[in-house]
Amino acid sequence: MQSFVAIAARRNTHCAVKNTEKTKVAVVGASGYTGEELVRLLLRHPGAELAAITSRQFAGKTLAEIFPRLAHHATAKALRFTDVKPAQLAELADVIFLALPHGVAVEFAGPLLEAGAKVIDLSADFRIKKAEMYQEFYAHAHAAPDLLSKAVYGLPEIHRTEICEARLVACPGCYPTSILLPAIPLLRERLVESDSIIANSLSGVSGAGRKAELDYLFVECNESVRPYGVPRHRHLAEIEQELSVAAGGAVMIQFTPHLIPVNRGILTTLYFAPTVIGKDPKRIGAAFRASYAKETFVRLLEEKTLPDTKNVVGSNFIEIAWRLDPRTGRLIVMSAEDNLLKGASGQAIQCFNILCGFKETAGLL
Amino acid sequence: MQSFVAIAARRNTHCAVKNTEKTKVAVVGASGYTGEELVRLLLRHPGAELAAITSRQFAGKTLAEIFPRLAHHATAKALRFTDVKPAQLAELADVIFLALPHGVAVEFAGPLLEAGAKVIDLSADFRIKKAEMYQEFYAHAHAAPDLLSKAVYGLPEIHRTEICEARLVACPGCYPTSILLPAIPLLRERLVESDSIIANSLSGVSGAGRKAELDYLFVECNESVRPYGVPRHRHLAEIEQELSVAAGGAVMIQFTPHLIPVNRGILTTLYFAPTVIGKDPKRIGAAFRASYAKETFVRLLEEKTLPDTKNVVGSNFIEIAWRLDPRTGRLIVMSAEDNLLKGASGQAIQCFNILCGFKETAGLL
Amino acid sequence: MQSFVAIAARRNTHCAVKNTEKTKVAVVGASGYTGEELVRLLLRHPGAELAAITSRQFAGKTLAEIFPRLAHHATAKALRFTDVKPAQLAELADVIFLALPHGVAVEFAGPLLEAGAKVIDLSADFRIKKAEMYQEFYAHAHAAPDLLSKAVYGLPEIHRTEICEARLVACPGCYPTSILLPAIPLLRERLVESDSIIANSLSGVSGAGRKAELDYLFVECNESVRPYGVPRHRHLAEIEQELSVAAGGAVMIQFTPHLIPVNRGILTTLYFAPTVIGKDPKRIGAAFRASYAKETFVRLLEEKTLPDTKNVVGSNFIEIAWRLDPRTGRLIVMSAEDNLLKGASGQAIQCFNILCGFKETAGLL
Amino acid sequence: MQSFVAIAARRNTHCAVKNTEKTKVAVVGASGYTGEELVRLLLRHPGAELAAITSRQFAGKTLAEIFPRLAHHATAKALRFTDVKPAQLAELADVIFLALPHGVAVEFAGPLLEAGAKVIDLSADFRIKKAEMYQEFYAHAHAAPDLLSKAVYGLPEIHRTEICEARLVACPGCYPTSILLPAIPLLRERLVESDSIIANSLSGVSGAGRKAELDYLFVECNESVRPYGVPRHRHLAEIEQELSVAAGGAVMIQFTPHLIPVNRGILTTLYFAPTVIGKDPKRIGAAFRASYAKETFVRLLEEKTLPDTKNVVGSNFIEIAWRLDPRTGRLIVMSAEDNLLKGASGQAIQCFNILCGFKETAGLL
Repeated sequence: MQSFVAIAARRNTHCAVKNTEKTKVAVVGASGYTGEELVRLLLRHPGAELAAITSRQFAGKTLAEIFPRLAHHATAKALRFTDVKPAQLAELADVIFLALPHGVAVEFAGPLLEAGAKVIDLSADFRIKKAEMYQEFYAHAHAAPDLLSKAVYGLPEIHRTEICEARLVACPGCYPTSILLPAIPLLRERLVESDSIIANSLSGVSGAGRKAELDYLFVECNESVRPYGVPRHRHLAEIEQELSVAAGGAVMIQFTPHLIPVNRGILTTLYFAPTVIGKDPKRIGAAFRASYAKETFVRLLEEKTLPDTKNVVGSNFIEIAWRLDPRTGRLIVMSAEDNLLKGASGQAIQCFNILCGFKETAGLL
Repeated sequence: MQSFVAIAARRNTHCAVKNTEKTKVAVVGASGYTGEELVRLLLRHPGAELAAITSRQFAGKTLAEIFPRLAHHATAKALRFTDVKPAQLAELADVIFLALPHGVAVEFAGPLLEAGAKVIDLSADFRIKKAEMYQEFYAHAHAAPDLLSKAVYGLPEIHRTEICEARLVACPGCYPTSILLPAIPLLRERLVESDSIIANSLSGVSGAGRKAELDYLFVECNESVRPYGVPRHRHLAEIEQELSVAAGGAVMIQFTPHLIPVNRGILTTLYFAPTVIGKDPKRIGAAFRASYAKETFVRLLEEKTLPDTKNVVGSNFIEIAWRLDPRTGRLIVMSAEDNLLKGASGQAIQCFNILCGFKETAGLL
Repeated sequence: MQSFVAIAARRNTHCAVKNTEKTKVAVVGASGYTGEELVRLLLRHPGAELAAITSRQFAGKTLAEIFPRLAHHATAKALRFTDVKPAQLAELADVIFLALPHGVAVEFAGPLLEAGAKVIDLSADFRIKKAEMYQEFYAHAHAAPDLLSKAVYGLPEIHRTEICEARLVACPGCYPTSILLPAIPLLRERLVESDSIIANSLSGVSGAGRKAELDYLFVECNESVRPYGVPRHRHLAEIEQELSVAAGGAVMIQFTPHLIPVNRGILTTLYFAPTVIGKDPKRIGAAFRASYAKETFVRLLEEKTLPDTKNVVGSNFIEIAWRLDPRTGRLIVMSAEDNLLKGASGQAIQCFNILCGFKETAGLL
Repeated sequence: MQSFVAIAARRNTHCAVKNTEKTKVAVVGASGYTGEELVRLLLRHPGAELAAITSRQFAGKTLAEIFPRLAHHATAKALRFTDVKPAQLAELADVIFLALPHGVAVEFAGPLLEAGAKVIDLSADFRIKKAEMYQEFYAHAHAAPDLLSKAVYGLPEIHRTEICEARLVACPGCYPTSILLPAIPLLRERLVESDSIIANSLSGVSGAGRKAELDYLFVECNESVRPYGVPRHRHLAEIEQELSVAAGGAVMIQFTPHLIPVNRGILTTLYFAPTVIGKDPKRIGAAFRASYAKETFVRLLEEKTLPDTKNVVGSNFIEIAWRLDPRTGRLIVMSAEDNLLKGASGQAIQCFNILCGFKETAGLL
């Protein structure tokens, strides 16, 4: 893998360098948890001008009214939610973030792209490359299959060069990010058996979105832990797609999500059978360092400590640690991230920065 | 105040002693938090036979299916939710618990009473004696004003004798219980100024019921504390009604409820200006002891410790402590209870025990 | 008590039937979380008379003073913590529960057994059969290796007959219980490959005990999830010992404990590679039913729902569910228990009931 | 930096304007919760250079090792905790923050001031003006009574001009800030009776500090609410001192702190008897607006919403709302703040900004 400097250099070669004017952005569906985080990050972003926010439910209200914690921003006091059409949005902003439910984002992306906007989508609608795979996991045909090939999977540490030239970025899900970043370096270097992967994930409740459902009431989640979506979660589609690219062949994994009583954070524990060369702990460490030593947002813990969501919540960082078990021979890799930041809106801003030629950490530190 | 023995003696005089057969009971609206607690308590009650449970939503399902934690009970495996009419219910059971939303219970109570059943209502529908006061606080006319005078306010430590002869018991709300039990002895003995009362209450989220509303989502409640319903909460109607009886004159109080991130529990801190005789700490302690020393479910902490909800959650106990502040001259009284038990379903069972001539603690220890 | 005795007699014909007198019991080290739970359960047990409780720290105080939630019990008001020697304890009680830290229990057990008492130990001191294995995992020689062979592993669903005749019961740890009950039926029936087992466990903070350590402060645990003890936790010794017995050969597993912000509860997710016959879902279900259909405290969820700690917290039940993944071919088994009850004190009472010829559920429902 | 300077100059014409060089700062006792927050804020402060951090316990370790969440900062990787003497510290930094326990800060302040440093103290050691009052509430004589008159109470919205010229700033406690900011405008304008004030406060557990004590274990705090320190808390000394200044005469208040299970946040509910002119709601609103309409960090909610700690946690804002109760005539005022930020370290940075001539919001938005 090339060094970060090389990649950054490539970015500067490939991407048009922005002038010092601010980029106008809009957030569609800004009333959910990821939408709120996007707005919060964009309000303090040095290169972004938040030009429009949409919400059917809150149309006419100011940002400050709906999100009291943002109420001190001048923009939040002035900017009102609207319910405009895609074509109008493309006139208001150059880059549009879609923080919409699965199946709704697809309706906005086409018109926005046609109108000349760039789109950063946080839903699952454009993450899958093959329409058949989409249909298999989402149980209905994709509504705009021709757009799938145009979308870039927005995991910067893996697809930075493509993101820099993209017009449609499909930001990864929270679980996929927590699994892909730890697993890809190991598969690329053939350090683990590709059919041995088990991912056990624990997610905070904000991952379920701001939805008025009994299952996510305080009393139903507090003092409770539970697995769900066993054995087949939709996120498997994008996870296996990306792992297969890294492995150079089809990868199928075991994935079990669990709901735990925290607002934010995902802790994923991965189990692998190492290959012959993967039994050497130096090779494991070297693979992680080669991939991530220069990545600002990946924190390799090496032999010192283990991940803890409280060290990453509120930030765009992901912590990764690993242990080779001398008794069983298995490799255990653990990651911790904020599901709403590195797992959603923070990563979307990271993509935005790459796309627009800003410093990749702009607005994120 | 008479001793417990005297009261108990009166009960035995006034109440028909039950034979050893079990009392058939039904729970209407058993799918909420108080309904679930009622069912749990009744399943293990030595004198109750749970004959029917109703829920529109869950009709046809067994108790075991809906409440997995009860699944080991033979009755829970067999008993199915139904959606029967009041008249039918009265054929199935002798005592009917209504765990229905405010405004719905009133529709069931009349028909049930006419059909000969006894009714223990956990809603606010029959707690107010005067229809005008009801209208003032609930903003609509009472649907069955003639029943108001027949209802007994189900606070056993205060109205035990009446409960024993009642056919319609209106169980107090969770906040009122936490305020009335500490305040009534002080008002009765003229130890505090009746216009000086401030009640600051903190409630767990189950107090809001099992309702799919955004405000009660885990993420909205966790890591949050907030007042609500300021300055006028509906529970004031019943609180002031009962305090006025104790004081022998109109009492108006200040009451501020707050939502805190616990499943269960209410902690109320009360502030009083003592009267001249109330400035004597011995008088305060004596008043509490006279009222509650023989009450099983009231735990007077005196000088030792302060209340903590974790000491009462899961039980029908209420803890009460008090301190006279030598600097300010004010009296501070604190109480802690489980809002679903002493504040709702546990108290309803306590009333049931009195009503049916069981030992008052039956099924509650 | 007659019915208890009759049932016990029927189940274990070789057990001496107890008379109807109460059994005198003592709890050594009653100030921790498991000690408090033991005391709570024993106070309401129909066949137990709590004759002594010890605590160096609280000697002279009553139970009611130290544990306010028990303050209504007459015994709790009267019984004081003492700091007596084992020999004296054996005079006060017939069955002694040891709720002591690892390494301390071993000092009490020998003298108590010699003095004629029966001992139910909740520590790890007598769970391992082989002194060498103990030394390997606990890093020091066992202080009473001759007692190891006399101890019975107190998992009633697996070792009921032995428990009934035991004089020294070593109650399983909380993690082991959550792993052994799901795994043993599968290994016994050769339905899973014995080298394929991965156990990912999530534990509430009470599992760490009532210890004043920074790691377990509210602020350090709340809004946090973290793995720990990777890859080698001491509980592996007893887990692998018991699994090896079930498999009829050495079993080595992968086990990762995690700390989550709940007071109580363990949720374990197990991953297995099924054997050829284990690929038949009917065989899996049949194995679980054969082992547990008649076990009161094991709740098999089958195809309906998935385990949730909130359904078992406060009870001695363990929930078990399983899924064969048609994509990967793996078997996923999930369990949920209360770490302080089925994982500690509840199970100890279950053993006590077997040992003394009480109904096995006495004091536990 | 120019604009910061210009703004500061405009606001405080008598303050020396800083040059554009960074100010060297040190944090003494950086291992607690307030110390960690100070370090976090200073690392991202545009005008501060963190030159030294001290901790006896962690001497020799880097910031990154001890606080993993800061590990991405270059300074955090390089800067090591030391255990140097005050005199040495004064050579390393121009402004020294003391995040030490009560009674320890006093030992550092004198030597530091003598050596020419400016001191911002977060302890209670210099908040009280009169040594006798200190002795009354802290039960021992003050160790450096001559310094008391030199200290400025660091509540910027009230004492900005003095802070700008101070050499020793005594930052207010978390409870005092939540009480003083709502109460002072009302007392200044004679809108409330000065003997009528009741403050009921709810605090997150971080307020107790990072101390290994049983009372603050997760299991002891989670699912628990409890009052403490009733009726006399040490913070009363500084609260009443500042309120008396505002009222122009001695003020004595009732104050009850409670511990609730959140990491951060204080919610205070205040009860007042309005004076004759205070019965006019317009006067109340006008008083708050007159005091705070131009204060960045005070968010007046007026008639719209009520405070919620989740809207201020992680920020230096305080939310204030008020309601005149038409039934009782009382005025209820509610405030919400982050106890570690506006209640401690954020406020200390705000003072630092004033002291050094930076924009008051530098590093805080």
